[in-house]
Amino acid sequence: MSDRPSGNAVIGQSGGPTAVINQSLAGVVEGLRAGLAGSGKVKRILGMRHGVRGMVKGDADGLVDLTGLAVDRLERIARTPSAALGSTRDKPDEAYCQKILEGCRSQDIRYFFYIGGNDSADTCRIVSEKTADAQYELRCFHVPKTIDNDLLENDHTPGFPSAARYVTLALMGDALDNASLGGIKINVVMGRNAGFLTAAASLARGQASTGAAPADRPAPHLIYLPEVPFSTDAFLADVEAVYGKLGRCQIAVSEGIRDEKGEEIGPKLMRGAGEVDAHGNVQLSGSGALGDGLAHLVKTGLTPKGGKAPRVRADTFGYIQRCWPHPSPIDAQEARAVGRYAAELAGKSETNASVIIRRTSNAPDAYASECGRAELSAVARRTRHVPKEFISGSNDVSVEFHAYCRPLVGELPTLERL
Amino acid sequence: MSDRPSGNAVIGQSGGPTAVINQSLAGVVEGLRAGLAGSGKVKRILGMRHGVRGMVKGDADGLVDLTGLAVDRLERIARTPSAALGSTRDKPDEAYCQKILEGCRSQDIRYFFYIGGNDSADTCRIVSEKTADAQYELRCFHVPKTIDNDLLENDHTPGFPSAARYVTLALMGDALDNASLGGIKINVVMGRNAGFLTAAASLARGQASTGAAPADRPAPHLIYLPEVPFSTDAFLADVEAVYGKLGRCQIAVSEGIRDEKGEEIGPKLMRGAGEVDAHGNVQLSGSGALGDGLAHLVKTGLTPKGGKAPRVRADTFGYIQRCWPHPSPIDAQEARAVGRYAAELAGKSETNASVIIRRTSNAPDAYASECGRAELSAVARRTRHVPKEFISGSNDVSVEFHAYCRPLVGELPTLERL
Repeated sequence: MSDRPSGNAVIGQSGGPTAVINQSLAGVVEGLRAGLAGSGKVKRILGMRHGVRGMVKGDADGLVDLTGLAVDRLERIARTPSAALGSTRDKPDEAYCQKILEGCRSQDIRYFFYIGGNDSADTCRIVSEKTADAQYELRCFHVPKTIDNDLLENDHTPGFPSAARYVTLALMGDALDNASLGGIKINVVMGRNAGFLTAAASLARGQASTGAAPADRPAPHLIYLPEVPFSTDAFLADVEAVYGKLGRCQIAVSEGIRDEKGEEIGPKLMRGAGEVDAHGNVQLSGSGALGDGLAHLVKTGLTPKGGKAPRVRADTFGYIQRCWPHPSPIDAQEARAVGRYAAELAGKSETNASVIIRRTSNAPDAYASECGRAELSAVARRTRHVPKEFISGSNDVSVEFHAYCRPLVGELPTLERL
Repeated sequence: MSDRPSGNAVIGQSGGPTAVINQSLAGVVEGLRAGLAGSGKVKRILGMRHGVRGMVKGDADGLVDLTGLAVDRLERIARTPSAALGSTRDKPDEAYCQKILEGCRSQDIRYFFYIGGNDSADTCRIVSEKTADAQYELRCFHVPKTIDNDLLENDHTPGFPSAARYVTLALMGDALDNASLGGIKINVVMGRNAGFLTAAASLARGQASTGAAPADRPAPHLIYLPEVPFSTDAFLADVEAVYGKLGRCQIAVSEGIRDEKGEEIGPKLMRGAGEVDAHGNVQLSGSGALGDGLAHLVKTGLTPKGGKAPRVRADTFGYIQRCWPHPSPIDAQEARAVGRYAAELAGKSETNASVIIRRTSNAPDAYASECGRAELSAVARRTRHVPKEFISGSNDVSVEFHAYCRPLVGELPTLERL
């Protein structure tokens, strides 16, 4: 730690937006106003449009001055889903970093706040290292955000509870729809490397896992995470067992399911070549191909019941998972808190850090959390997976997962069946 | 009209469920209790499990006694999405009708309430004709329900406002997601024959259509209804114009879009044979194929911008549209009212009828509606399409549509952008 430099602050948003990412933006602004900006150490608070891309542009098109943004407008922005500043998936290389450094210099930026996931934490780390190499004093803070919930060091990440709430509500409604007309319903959930969001489908049951056989569970009957090797034979046998007994079967499956060799099932089932992004990932979201592929598997692989092929439907939960305008209230609060905490860290002469969330109480009706700090390198690029204790067998989650996830999603409707 | 026979009543739910179809079930039960059942004309109120299929079964597996169902439980069921009795897509033929007649006879059913869309109204009509032919006195009432909003004689249909609310909220969030990362986003909306639900996407703009060019409209920039012939060339030109100017383009497209010959685009773009249901319809829902096909069209058909292919994503809004557990409040009220009204018609010695909704006021903040009756034959099988005055050009809806639809969906969040 060293004394705090004087200059300006910049905030950026990166990666897939969430329903509460603007709460974090508002939190940083609020925290700066109460601290460094209030005391005069920070003169201007700037926003990067589309993340580091805005910093590189450096002009009015790339940067927006948030210093004087009215409190009520900031509050309305905080309640609006998706990145208000715009987002990016750009990942800076050497040349890109040089441009960011130039941008920071020309704007006298001394505090750099970057709201995003593990790729964004890595961008933050790279920027902090490159500016240090250039002996340009810049303090970089990563503010956590991802619906995938896959950041290390965090109990959970802002954005996840709201997406989990959406998935839970969707599965609750869908379970009843499936019960109304019968058949097999496949729901593909986002999260290519970590299955937390798919696991949240289990909350639609309204109770913790009882360890019952799939057909004796409340729907969803089957849950497939990327952390558990996926076998199409076992999948068909699972579906047949449930459908044979109930005449229906509701399934939640991660877009990132993999076989025992670790190879993704999605691209194998997808007809036509997948699109590859800047981070080398094949596009799974924004396409119904995995769901349709699994539905085709079931239609062709299942023994017809009484000579009649089952009704099979697949829904791929797309971008609405991360931008539904009614977030989890706890998520909104925590996303605000991590932004504010980042600004407070900067005010306390901290240098580079990643803000994290720790759960301090999970007592019934007394859930509580606090913010803390971690090294950027502890969060950057690394992926947290669903831990073993949250998984039950090959197609379910555990009681422990329910205890972990239930407090995060907020109040759920009470449904009644005949 | 003739005096009311004594006997039992039966209620069924049919076709695609909605978020408020159980409000109609509760409404019929409530109305019977206040009228025919209260006065002793109706002794038992039965529910058919899975529509007419339950009537044919006729046993405890097919029929459920609702006579003594507790009021608080009925209320909880009313607030639960999807058909509590189970639904069916069975369409009775001669032999099937004979079995329904036998079922009615053996249970002394004299009042038959069927909640559903135009296929269900037709089932109601067929049952009423066949029982009349057999000189079995049965009074049949159709209670309207469909997210497609395609029933004639009705201002709108229960189920539509809640689905329209879901689509509006989804498009609101998605527009901001699209603005955050840019690119072209295709959203496929349910409604194969009528474009009302797709048209509801326009409410995400927060304002009525101004008649501006697509790139100058708030998102969604482009809206394609099945009522307007769809040309892939015009579509590509539309998308290019918006994307070229804004670097993004949000699209809402009906699953039922058709070319100038009236042939559906979906099956043409779908690789693999479509599934055909009992009513002869090719399966469009529960598959991402149309969205993926349109995305492929755009990816391959659009001139790359600066040598870079655009980011194209497609989400197919699936069954969640009709079962999201947070309905439009007006929809919940009206769905209750049509059920109650059907029971009241029966109590007033009416014979066969279809309940309809009329709008009585569309004054700002003073929307009001009332129930009425129509002949079964006026509603059965026929499809109401989006009228010309609700359509603007080839890719938008009109000011009139906004005035029509906005009061139905309830309060919307106020979003703010930078």
